[in-house]
Amino acid sequence: MLSAFDKYTIHPGMSSGGSTVRIGELSKRTGVAVPTIKYYLREGMLPPGELTSPNQARYDETHVHRLRLVRALIDVGGLPVATVKEVLTSVDSPSDDIEKLLGTVQHALFPGPPPSSAATQAAAEDEVRALIGELGWYCRDNHPAVSALATVLVSARALGHSEFLDTVRRYVTVAEQIGVVDLDYIVDRLGVDGMVESVVVGTVLGDTALIALRRLAQVSESAKRFPDRRRPAAPA
Amino acid sequence: MLSAFDKYTIHPGMSSGGSTVRIGELSKRTGVAVPTIKYYLREGMLPPGELTSPNQARYDETHVHRLRLVRALIDVGGLPVATVKEVLTSVDSPSDDIEKLLGTVQHALFPGPPPSSAATQAAAEDEVRALIGELGWYCRDNHPAVSALATVLVSARALGHSEFLDTVRRYVTVAEQIGVVDLDYIVDRLGVDGMVESVVVGTVLGDTALIALRRLAQVSESAKRFPDRRRPAAPA
Repeated sequence: MLSAFDKYTIHPGMSSGGSTVRIGELSKRTGVAVPTIKYYLREGMLPPGELTSPNQARYDETHVHRLRLVRALIDVGGLPVATVKEVLTSVDSPSDDIEKLLGTVQHALFPGPPPSSAATQAAAEDEVRALIGELGWYCRDNHPAVSALATVLVSARALGHSEFLDTVRRYVTVAEQIGVVDLDYIVDRLGVDGMVESVVVGTVLGDTALIALRRLAQVSESAKRFPDRRRPAAPA
Repeated sequence: MLSAFDKYTIHPGMSSGGSTVRIGELSKRTGVAVPTIKYYLREGMLPPGELTSPNQARYDETHVHRLRLVRALIDVGGLPVATVKEVLTSVDSPSDDIEKLLGTVQHALFPGPPPSSAATQAAAEDEVRALIGELGWYCRDNHPAVSALATVLVSARALGHSEFLDTVRRYVTVAEQIGVVDLDYIVDRLGVDGMVESVVVGTVLGDTALIALRRLAQVSESAKRFPDRRRPAAPA
């Protein structure tokens, strides 16, 4: 269990030789309850502290940071604990292959595709791959986003929303801009802390930020188009 | 319990006087197991069928459609059953006030803000409101996206990612384009089926589609910038 932390990165500005605290103080500083911290320790999500007596351990800034990361993934990202553990395994295994890294983190952060007729789903995945090819995007065939997007198409059609594919096509231009912003962020953060952590934090916080901004933009756009707050008239 | 369905909309092209099926056939057509269908009936998420004998009911196309909607919200949207019930209440209470409708659906579709220091959270919410004002966006003060976005800022800072605010600012332009695409979709669908359903379907499928496209765009952008698949060099 401990071996996963052999490569645990000490973030610049965080001295492991600095002041250390007991678990109660760690709880106070992070707002995470002591029993929860003990659970994370047992599950290997938090590296063990330095034992100062058989029943006492002391924790440092790396523990404070790790707890904040865990809580951000759970509270902001809404990730289940099992997924958090998987993501942390990536964080603890630094890689210098950015594409592989994106793949690992994205796999962990994507829910599995829901059950649906294998044939319908496979056909929709072919459609998504064709769209990716048409766009000149690069993507491995088995990327989880391919099946997620295929599931969206299958569901939209089953609900009689076939035109939703047009909306997806219009989202493409938008997504390309998001990709540029995201890679800029990862590159800008190089040297500040681990690239893996930037990918994880950027992905999880970014998802939530984008969804929140989408909601606000919808309300704003609606207020702009229909200032009298009434239902728009159906097209003739 | 039944009263919630008094206003249940028969979608155009779905005749309630058309052919009806037993629960087994309903299950076969939608891929939803019979016990699950019975659960949805008990919970009021699916309107009751037409009784043909004390123990037999028959179901029509409105039931097929409703089951597909429920499964899309759960499988594609990843929503918990309690949230699905809340969203369905909106679907069953048609409103002609698009802004109120967006608000209701968005409230149901947003997870509550995680616990965090009330003062820090409140300060971040003020910051978000200032950003919204600066953008000339329209938004009610208590919109759930405001606290979601504030939570992102609080978490980013706690993790030493203060620059993430710059990323959020760059997402704004992108979000404005998404808002336009989304409102176009809702307006285009008017007259096809209930506006509420278009908002729900567009919101849930759209979230998943955007997140999937974001992942694909990141991989593509990364492959474009670093064609040798190696880690980008840290800036000097």
